[in-house]
Formats: sequence, structure tokens, C-alpha cells
Amino acid sequence: MPLENLHKKLEALYPEMVEVRRYLHMHPELSFKEVETARYIADFYKKLGIGVREHVGGNGIVARVKGAKPGKTIALRADFDALPIQEENDVPYKSQVPGVMHACGHDGHTATLLILAKAIHELKDELQGEFVFIHQHAEEFAPGGAKAMIEDGCLDGVDAVFGTHLWATAPTGHIQYRKGPFMAAADRFEIMIHGHGGHGAQPHLSKDAVVIGAQLVTNLQQVVSRRINPVQSAVLTIGTFESGDAFNVIADTAKITGTVRTFDEEVRDSVEKEIERIVKGTCLTADCKYDYEYFRGYPPVVNHDAETEFLAECAKQIPEVKKVEEIDASMIGEDFAYYLQHVKGAFFFTGADPEKADPAYPHHHPRFDINEKAMLIAAKTLGTAAIQYQNA
Amino acid sequence: MPLENLHKKLEALYPEMVEVRRYLHMHPELSFKEVETARYIADFYKKLGIGVREHVGGNGIVARVKGAKPGKTIALRADFDALPIQEENDVPYKSQVPGVMHACGHDGHTATLLILAKAIHELKDELQGEFVFIHQHAEEFAPGGAKAMIEDGCLDGVDAVFGTHLWATAPTGHIQYRKGPFMAAADRFEIMIHGHGGHGAQPHLSKDAVVIGAQLVTNLQQVVSRRINPVQSAVLTIGTFESGDAFNVIADTAKITGTVRTFDEEVRDSVEKEIERIVKGTCLTADCKYDYEYFRGYPPVVNHDAETEFLAECAKQIPEVKKVEEIDASMIGEDFAYYLQHVKGAFFFTGADPEKADPAYPHHHPRFDINEKAMLIAAKTLGTAAIQYQNA
Amino acid sequence: MPLENLHKKLEALYPEMVEVRRYLHMHPELSFKEVETARYIADFYKKLGIGVREHVGGNGIVARVKGAKPGKTIALRADFDALPIQEENDVPYKSQVPGVMHACGHDGHTATLLILAKAIHELKDELQGEFVFIHQHAEEFAPGGAKAMIEDGCLDGVDAVFGTHLWATAPTGHIQYRKGPFMAAADRFEIMIHGHGGHGAQPHLSKDAVVIGAQLVTNLQQVVSRRINPVQSAVLTIGTFESGDAFNVIADTAKITGTVRTFDEEVRDSVEKEIERIVKGTCLTADCKYDYEYFRGYPPVVNHDAETEFLAECAKQIPEVKKVEEIDASMIGEDFAYYLQHVKGAFFFTGADPEKADPAYPHHHPRFDINEKAMLIAAKTLGTAAIQYQNA
Amino acid sequence: MPLENLHKKLEALYPEMVEVRRYLHMHPELSFKEVETARYIADFYKKLGIGVREHVGGNGIVARVKGAKPGKTIALRADFDALPIQEENDVPYKSQVPGVMHACGHDGHTATLLILAKAIHELKDELQGEFVFIHQHAEEFAPGGAKAMIEDGCLDGVDAVFGTHLWATAPTGHIQYRKGPFMAAADRFEIMIHGHGGHGAQPHLSKDAVVIGAQLVTNLQQVVSRRINPVQSAVLTIGTFESGDAFNVIADTAKITGTVRTFDEEVRDSVEKEIERIVKGTCLTADCKYDYEYFRGYPPVVNHDAETEFLAECAKQIPEVKKVEEIDASMIGEDFAYYLQHVKGAFFFTGADPEKADPAYPHHHPRFDINEKAMLIAAKTLGTAAIQYQNA
Repeated sequence: MPLENLHKKLEALYPEMVEVRRYLHMHPELSFKEVETARYIADFYKKLGIGVREHVGGNGIVARVKGAKPGKTIALRADFDALPIQEENDVPYKSQVPGVMHACGHDGHTATLLILAKAIHELKDELQGEFVFIHQHAEEFAPGGAKAMIEDGCLDGVDAVFGTHLWATAPTGHIQYRKGPFMAAADRFEIMIHGHGGHGAQPHLSKDAVVIGAQLVTNLQQVVSRRINPVQSAVLTIGTFESGDAFNVIADTAKITGTVRTFDEEVRDSVEKEIERIVKGTCLTADCKYDYEYFRGYPPVVNHDAETEFLAECAKQIPEVKKVEEIDASMIGEDFAYYLQHVKGAFFFTGADPEKADPAYPHHHPRFDINEKAMLIAAKTLGTAAIQYQNA
Repeated sequence: MPLENLHKKLEALYPEMVEVRRYLHMHPELSFKEVETARYIADFYKKLGIGVREHVGGNGIVARVKGAKPGKTIALRADFDALPIQEENDVPYKSQVPGVMHACGHDGHTATLLILAKAIHELKDELQGEFVFIHQHAEEFAPGGAKAMIEDGCLDGVDAVFGTHLWATAPTGHIQYRKGPFMAAADRFEIMIHGHGGHGAQPHLSKDAVVIGAQLVTNLQQVVSRRINPVQSAVLTIGTFESGDAFNVIADTAKITGTVRTFDEEVRDSVEKEIERIVKGTCLTADCKYDYEYFRGYPPVVNHDAETEFLAECAKQIPEVKKVEEIDASMIGEDFAYYLQHVKGAFFFTGADPEKADPAYPHHHPRFDINEKAMLIAAKTLGTAAIQYQNA
Repeated sequence: MPLENLHKKLEALYPEMVEVRRYLHMHPELSFKEVETARYIADFYKKLGIGVREHVGGNGIVARVKGAKPGKTIALRADFDALPIQEENDVPYKSQVPGVMHACGHDGHTATLLILAKAIHELKDELQGEFVFIHQHAEEFAPGGAKAMIEDGCLDGVDAVFGTHLWATAPTGHIQYRKGPFMAAADRFEIMIHGHGGHGAQPHLSKDAVVIGAQLVTNLQQVVSRRINPVQSAVLTIGTFESGDAFNVIADTAKITGTVRTFDEEVRDSVEKEIERIVKGTCLTADCKYDYEYFRGYPPVVNHDAETEFLAECAKQIPEVKKVEEIDASMIGEDFAYYLQHVKGAFFFTGADPEKADPAYPHHHPRFDINEKAMLIAAKTLGTAAIQYQNA
Repeated sequence: MPLENLHKKLEALYPEMVEVRRYLHMHPELSFKEVETARYIADFYKKLGIGVREHVGGNGIVARVKGAKPGKTIALRADFDALPIQEENDVPYKSQVPGVMHACGHDGHTATLLILAKAIHELKDELQGEFVFIHQHAEEFAPGGAKAMIEDGCLDGVDAVFGTHLWATAPTGHIQYRKGPFMAAADRFEIMIHGHGGHGAQPHLSKDAVVIGAQLVTNLQQVVSRRINPVQSAVLTIGTFESGDAFNVIADTAKITGTVRTFDEEVRDSVEKEIERIVKGTCLTADCKYDYEYFRGYPPVVNHDAETEFLAECAKQIPEVKKVEEIDASMIGEDFAYYLQHVKGAFFFTGADPEKADPAYPHHHPRFDINEKAMLIAAKTLGTAAIQYQNA
């Protein structure tokens, strides 16, 4: 009964959901600078008379709705920060902020959660337990907002947490999940090689940072190819290599930065150490010095088995959902990871291919967009899970 | 007799030589932009009533002085452009042009040649043959001024040419020379690797330009280590490597530039071709595209045996010269090379260590300076060679 | 009832099982040369009056026992070839054949299956369905015996197949399994680089096969590190590198052999192609020729989900089994893979750590041994599965 | 006068020279095992009544002839050991010793010197000074025979030494020389990498010696390309790379051997040290151990300027000599180097292309042969130098 009502209500509220999303899309704010967006969200709740806590762990907002009957406390999370990208879509709701864009769908996440909260609020007399709506700032930029919001109490008393990512490269109507490790730990490293510059014609008087750096990049390939258990996953990407100022001068330094993605903490430790040993050895071959720093980013998103299976079952009850599938893990990172370290729950992808391009523009692309219908599917799935978890 | 007189006259004119050099040092101009310097030089000759040709092959100046008796025509050359370097010396004659500096001693070359011309002009009644004073612009920047000046006739009728470089890293009082190849051909190359960028967590969907570029740099080491006859000399330096914008994004392209130094034309051709084959093969391993351009710079400076031995003998007659030594060739480039392709002659180093630092600051350094006494030695050596070559 | 009886009977027959295993251990035969072992197995069945088919697909033996009641046909498989290793164990049942050893436990597999067959034969009046005992030759050496035995009909009419490997590096009492891909496809490749030999002092007249080969090995690391989806597994090991005859002669050729392990057919195809492209590109950098051959070995062992879960449930009923655990897949190969391509079934590891060393000597080691008690556990587990599968 | 007589006598003795050479060619002996060859040489002198000293520093022979008049003492040297090569020439004088061959022309050197000694002996009444004929064993195998013969006094009282190598890859009639460094120091090194073997499917449990060794070979290319002054010569050749026994097993060790060629002692020291640093650093990247040994071979052959110019002048007087040319240095080694460290002298090449193949088979080839006429040229040149050096 309450489920049916919820679905109907969400359908009725869908135009508002689209409106909210488009408003947010036009007014994006960068991670940790989401002041207006936070105010917008808080106002939304205040107008509805829903209790809201502001400035949770920074710009975070937490709203809570109690059902008529006692029960478990279920949290749902949406993030609301945007990216430093100049939008290239030609749409009526195009970003009005130069160089900033909701190119990852967080506008859709927020609209989904706000309208779902409104629907649940309207149905609260029929409902059991308590619903916690976590609007998280700063997902895109480590250390992220999740950790600070948790430390500031957003999960207090929560029994389970669910979240989704609108996923433009998956077909609309598909729900994708995975038990256990689902998204990777995402770390960053920086290496500075201190060679010894000199005249391009006199290599023997210098220590050529370009050559040492190149050797290092090549040597680092062995971390994944030889040092990591092949049935474990690891990515070691060197994103940037900068060395030298002039074609005829031997470079003094080489600056190398990169990212490491893993699911397993032991593998993660191992990669960090192996990089250092290879840097050390490579620099020894050239008798030069180095700096090496490794920064831990978000931990892996590890879904809880029972909650993930439960979520998949919930998804199958949504009429618009054509396929519910367990997929391979992704090496991409998400700070939803932190919530799952504290309470049970599951994170999943809601297919949102806008069918404008084939294939869809990927996340973080200047032409990224979502199928707004996917918001309704996400809202129904999250809402269903929140309500049915009372009986799980 | 004339030699003795020349030396005495140069000694008498030495204060003016220093004055000229310091004036030029304070007013440096970049390669191909030496308008005021050219005017200064031309005016110097005009005031002395010496015939001068301006705008030779660009900003070049050529003055000619005829001796009383007929004989061979001897050319002497000095270059006069400066470098884009901010002087860091704290001297009264410090460069007054921000970011431009005579950091290679061309100011000294010019002062040496002007005063030598003045002395020869004053002694012309005692002298045989004709003296051609070539003031060359743009030595520091390929394609340089020498080629254009030669095409514009600066060597017409010339029997032999001599030139020197004040050499701050050799002791003042030393004259250094080498028969045959003395300074290297200096070429430039640019390689652009077109990989395929992507998310740092998805290497399999990309072609990683950092990794391909690093592999290329490593592979290029084999050109010198394996492909070139070990009794020949070659340098292949990669001066710059730029790839990637973000630590967590796989780079789309890698831009690599470098220089090649050789003495032998066959080796030079071979290096150019080997680089291309290695670029081609390396890019094939990654199924990616590339651009490769190889730009020929100055040819090698190849001294003529007889003229070089003659020059060395002349140098031994200068009282201030304590040592005349044949040295190893240098991989550094010089467009004096072009003159030696057209007429016989020799290029040599005049030691000019200012003994301010130990070791002396090298050429192109912000603290570079010369020992001004070396100008007198250079003038005497060049003048002696020019006069005695009549009997060579 | 029948299960209890089976277990009791197996316990009673355990001394014979040990005796059979030790006899086989003392008389090992290499893959495809197992003539006496095959005769021993056939004789064992003949003495019991069990119908046996010899020379199945080579040296293979198939025995069949029918239960009193009709039902499904279940196949159980044991391999019986040995390895070219000189045993270093000092045991009474040490191999009597120099340089040949049962260093992988196939002696134990065979003893397990023979005694299990004997027990089932004795209990056949209580049993339902038909039991097929597949004694397979040549598991250790591709193309293996499984394929030929299947083509020769050993699986005809079979509904499901089960098999186990005694696993010396897992604790005795543990049963290890995995649904889906469990063991890897194991391929082999050979690369011959045709350089151009020469005097060690004249690299420029040669194409140095050592250097090209080394470059290739290094480049091949990128297959796993950059070309394969990180959530897939792949191993590319270069096992041998042979190049050059004398320290002062440049090598003419380099011979490189290796193995590739994968679970996914697409990944497997991709690795095969990537190796070729890298070989081609690397040889192009040196303008030399190559041969490349890729030999497909066994496909991956992909367990059927339902049969694997069924098997795990059966294992839990064995009193000696202390732990039944789903483990990570292994990159090691097994030609049991072929059976699973034809009928449903599961392959699993039966822990067999002999506790002689810590850790146990690995498979293929001269000091490898098993805990013979593990044979009883294997026999009970396989027997239980065979009997209970009637109701599965 | 004496010169003319010498030349005529040598021409008359040429048939015997050929005979001696062919006899030696048919009876080759390996380095340090030249017992019969030494006896043959000693007997040759004894029969002529020339004083001979046997067993000089091993199998060496020294004969001395005094001219009628006092003067300088001139030594001439020929080596007489053969190589472990199976001759493939089909000639009447083919080697009669299986697997041993005069594939470097030492048979010709010996015949040249013996007949030259005979001629000088016959002319001794016309001659001034003393002539020392050094027949050296073991040139092909370090530590060689030269060092021991010198220590045993073969150069005592000697004023100058000359020697030649018949050079099959230079045209007959050419004399090739070089002042200063002419042939290289030839050293040997051995590196053993101690990785950690393992199953080919489990790279993470091993330290892959093939991969570490390949990385090392690649890294070592930088010694020549980046660490050595480009106007100096150095060769670093890795001659052998052996690693691994089976395609599917990770190799435990990699054995690498090679040679280093240099002219300059400082460069030589530097290469030795750079290799060690690179080995150390490369092994550190993989956390593995290594052994590194560097064995010094012959020093460089450094000709004395005056003696070399003198020799070139002598060569120009030989009618059969069509060209006397200064050539590039060679990276090949020769223990004639030791003689030149003790007394003044020169070593040169006597062109000996047999014109059987185009190009001629190189030294150490199973089809190597010489033009026997070159022996006459060598004898005349050495004899002329020995006689004329009295006046040098």
C-alpha cells in the first residue's frame, strides 16, 4: 500500500523534480564552495516544515522525517557539488556559471532526494521508522564531504544507508549493483626527480631527469604486471610527466603525478611500497635524489551482501526497471565508501543514458547529460528500499 | 715590424676596447633584433673613414681595409647578438635591458674586432693585402646570420677566414684549437605522440601517452649506444617531455623535443633516420600515431688543417699567450661553420676565465663574465694571423 | 543410509587406498607414456568384475557401475600421469623411476577414485543411477588427455561431472571451491628475434638481439599494466630468455618463451594480439625480423554455479571436513576445463597439507608430498556428491 | 743499399714464406697450448744458427740478430696462437686440427717474421744495431702472452718496437695506422641476478629474473648514451643473456655477460663504476641480490706519435704499397698494447683482402683467409722500419 502510494506520488511530483534539477544545473558550485546550493536545499525542507540541520561537517545538510510507527532508521544520500568544466551542451538549462558544470549528475541526485523526501514526508502517517536525507557536499574532491558529515553525526542512529549514482553510460531502465567491492580506493602520488641539469651537448656532466623519469615510468609498469596478485585488481596510472624547459638543455627535474586504484587494503599498501622501492632503485641507478609522496584518497566502496541483494530485489519491483544486473566492479572512486564503513548498506548505479549520442558522453565530459526519467527510477528504487527495509 | 707595431697599437687602444665592450654589454639586443648594435658598429667605422657595408644578409656589417701592397684577402669575424637571460652580475657595466644579456661574450668579440680594425686601418700603409671585418648578427639562434651574410657576399674574394670565441671556462692566456671537426652540428627535433586519453581508472580504454613517451625516451638511448660507430661522436638529448594535465586522467598526447649533435654528415643522417624508426616502432607497439620533425641547425665547425696549424703558430708569438693546445672537439654548435665551408680558415677559443668564481660561470649563465684582458690576446692573435697569412 | 554405508566402507578400505597410492607413487610414468599405470587401473577393475573400457582417447580408462535403481549418470574423474622431476623425499614409497615423480598428487587422485569405485560397486544394490569413473592420462602436458577422452565418448550419457585436486598447500580438512571461473586458461608463446650478430666492439654494424629482446620484455609488461581491463585477470610471464654465445660477440638471435593465463576468452584474444603488436613494433624499432607463435592450451575451468553450490553442501556433510570455503580463482591451468564445457559439474581442491614442512612444499617440487588422509576426505566428498546428485 | 737488398731477398724468400705460413695454418694450436708451434719456430732459428731463447714468459720465443755496426735495438713482434673455430675453407692448406683454426692470420704473422729474420740475418754484415724477433704466444686469450714475455725480459735493451696485423677486411696494398689510441682496452664483465623463481601463474610470489635482467640491459644503454663524454669512445656490449628453464616457470636467476671497450683509462673506470651503480639500482627496484665482476683485459694500444709517423713514411717506400692512410681507431683489442707501454713504437694494419669474397670474410670467421702477398708487404714494411729506425 504505502509503496504504491509512494510511486504514485513520485510520478505526480516528477515535473517538480525536473524543475529542481534544472535549477541546480544552471547554478552549479564547486566542491567545498556549495554555499548557495546548500541554502537552496535547506530552504526546500524548511518550506515543507521538515526539520533540517545545516552546516553538517561543512556545507552538508541533513533532514529527518519520522514515520507514524516506530522502526528502523534508514539514511539516503545525495551529493550536490559540481566540477570545474565549461559546459558545451546547448540546452535551456545550461550552466550559467562560466567554467563550472554539473557534469557528473549530482544535480539529478539532489533533485531525486529532495522530491523523494517530500513524498515520504507527505506519506509519513502510513510509514514506519525514520528517514534520514543526507545531502552531502564535496564528493568530487578528496578528502570529500562524507567523512566530515559522519564525524558530525549524520549517521547517528542510522541502521542502513543507500545511495545511487545516475549513470549516463548505462541504459536508462537498468539498475546495476555488485556485492562486496564495487568501486575502488582512489589514491594520488607525486614524485619529483632531482637530476642535475646541463648543456644538451654535455650529457656526461649532468643527470638527465627526462631519461631517469622515463625509466621510472617504464619500471612502474611492473607493479601491476608482476607484483600484484593477478586475481586482485590494481591500476597505477601516471597522469602527468613534466620535465625540461628547452630542447637543447638537459632537464634538472622531472615531476610525475599519478593515481592508484585498488579494492583491497593489502594490495593498496603493497602498491604504495612498491612504487617507493622502484623510485628509490631507479634514482639510485642515476645517483640522483627524489621526493615521493603518497596521498590516500577515498577507501573502496564495499557493499554489504544482504543489503545489496535486498536493494536488487527492491529494484525489480519498479515497473520502469527493465534489468537489474550484477556488474563488474569499477576502478572509479566514491566517498560513499565512508558511510558503508559505519553502517550497513548498498550503493548502486541507476542507468541514465540520455540517448543523445551513441555512446553517451561519459561523466566529466563537457557534453555530459542525463536522462531525467532516470531520476524517477532512482527515487522509486531508493524509496522502495527505505520503506521495505523495515521488514528486511 | 708591422706585427710589433700592431701589438703596440692594440695595447695603446686597450682602454677603448674595454670601453666599447662595456657599452655593448650595457645595451644588448636579441638575435635578429640587433638594430642599435649594428648602427653602433657602422658608426664606429664611418667615424674612422673606413668603408662599411650595412644590412648584409640582415643586420650584418662588413668593413674592408686595404693594405698599401697587394696580397691575399683575409676575413675576421665577430658576432654581436645577445641572449634572453636576466643578468645577475653586480657590475658597473651591467646590462640595462631587462631580460637580455651578453652572456656569451659577443660584446667582447665585437670590441676586439672593432679595435683590431682600427689598429690595422692605422697601420695599413705598412701592410699587404686586404682585411675584411665581418660583424655578424644572430649567431645564437638558427638559422643564424652567417649563412645569409655569405649569400649576401661577405666572403667574396676572401682567401681565408679566422674567428675566435672568448672562452670563460678556459684560463686566460690559453689558446685552444683543434684541426678538423672542432664544434658539432646542432640539430633540433620535435615528436608529438598522439595517444588516446581517458579516465585514469580505465587504462584498457585508452592509449597512455605518458607510457608510450617514456618507452620512446628509453628506446632512443640505443641510437647512441648501439647504432652509431663508437669512434664517432653523437649526442641525442631529449630536452623536454610534457604529457598530461591531471594526475587521475590518462594523457592524450606527449610532446618531446630534443637536440642532436654530430660531427659527421653520415652520422647525422643516420641519427635522424634512427630516431624516426624508433618513434615509428614504439608508436606501433601502442597502435598510436605520431608527428616527427627534424630541423637541421648549423653544420659542424670543421677547421682546415693548414690554417689551424698556422693559427696555432701565430698564437705562440703572442707574449701573453702561455699555452697553445689542441683540445678535444666540443659538441656545442657555432655558425662559423658556414664560413669554413666556403673558404679556408680556422676557429679557436681564447681563454677568458675572469677568475671571479671557481670554476668560472659557464656561457649562458646569468653570472657569466669574461676577463677583458682576453680581448687583447684575441685581437693580437687574430691580427697576427691576418698579417702573417700573406706569407702562409 | 547409502551415504553412511559409503563412508564406513571407505574408512574400511582406507589402508588399501594408501597401498594403491604408494604403489603408484613408486611407479610413475610421464604424460602420454602411462602404459603400465593404465594397465594397473584396468586390472583393478577387471579383478572386481567391473566393466572397463581401455585406450579411451589414448591411455585413458573408463569404468562404469550401475546402481540398482535408474537415475542420473554421474562421472568422477582422476588423472594419473607424473612429472619429469627427480624425487628428493626420503620415504619408503619413493619413486623408483629416476627423474620421474608423482609430484602433483595424481597418484593420490587415482587411488581415491579406484577405492571409491570399489566401494560404490559393493554398494550398488542400494544405489540409484550410473557411476562413470574416468581415469585420465596426460593432464600435465598440453593438449592433455581430457579432450581426446571426451571425443572418444567418455562423457556420453553423463549428466554431471565432478573432480578434485589434492592440494598440498591447503590445510587437510579444508574443501576449497569457487563458482564460475576457478582455474585459468593456460597458453604458451614463443618469440624468436632475428637480429644481426657481429663483433662486440662494432655495435653499429649489428642489430643487437639481446638489447632488442630486453626492450621487448620490458614493453610486454604494458599488456597487463595498461591494455587489460583491471577488473579482469591476466598473467603474462616470460619464462625463458636465451641470447648470445660469447661475452664479446653481439648476439644474432634472442629466443623468448612464456605463458599467458586468463579467465575470459576476450581477454585471452586481446593478450595474444597485443603481444604480437608489441613484438612487431619493437622489432621495427631495430629494423629486424621475428617469429611469433601462440599456442592455445587448456581453456579456463569454469565451474557451474548450481553444481558448485551442491558440491559445497555435500562437503559440509563429511565429518573430517573442518572448513568449506569459496576462494579466489587460481591462474593455474587444468584440463578438467574440457569436461565442464560438455556437461555440468564442479572441480574443487581437497586440502592435503602433509604438515612435514611449513609452508608445505608446493606442487611440482622435488619434495612435494600429500597427507594421505586427504584421499579419504576426497573419496567421501566425491562419493557423497555422486550419490546425492540423484536428488539435486 | 741495405734496404734494396732486403727487399730483393724477401722477394726471393717469398715462396718459403708461403710454405711456412701454410704449414702453420695446417697445424694450429690454441692459446697457451702452442707447444709444437713454439718448437717449430725455435727450430727455424736454430737451423739458421740464430740465437734463440725459448719458453719466454710461457711458450714465447725470442731471437736476436746483431748487425755489424753498433746502433739501436729494434724489436719486431708476431703472435702465433690459433682459435677454437672449425675451418670451413676448402683449401689445400686447410687446418688439420678439428675445431682449431688460424682464423686471425697469426700464421701469416709468424711466417712474415721468420722470413724477415732470415733475410736480416743474411744481411747482417751490412746492418747497424740489433734486431729482436719476438714470437708471442696467446694473443687471443686474456691475460695474453705479451705481459709475461715482457716480464721475462723480451724488451730488455729494446729502443723501439713495431708490429702489424694482417687485416683481411682492408685492401691488399694498403697500410693503415693511427697516431695515439689505435685499438681499445677490452674488458669483460659478468652479472648474476638472483631473483626468486616461482610458478608462471604467480608473479606476485616471485622476483622475476627475466624482467629484472631485461630492465638492466635497457638501463645499461644509458652508460654510453648519457654518462660518457660524447667526444670519448666507449662500447658496452652485453654478449649473453641466459635466464629461465621452462616457459611456464618464473626464472630464479639471469646470467648476463658482456664486454667494455674504451681508449681512456678514466672512461674505463667510469664505465666499470656506472655498470655497478645501474646493477645495484635495478636490483633494488626488485628487492633482489646480484653478483657483479669486472675483469680488466688488455689496455688500449696507444701508438707513439713519432714512431707512427716514421712507420708511415717507411711504408710509403714499399713499391707494393698503394695507400698509406691514417684511419679511425678500432674498438678491437690487442695485447701489443703492453709493448707500447714499455718502449716507443707503433702497431699498424697491413691490408690483406684475399678477394675471394665481397666483402672479405672477417677475422674469426670459419671462412677467414688472407692474401699471402700481404705477408711480403708486411715483411718489407717492418724490415724497412727496423733498418731505418737507426737514423730516426
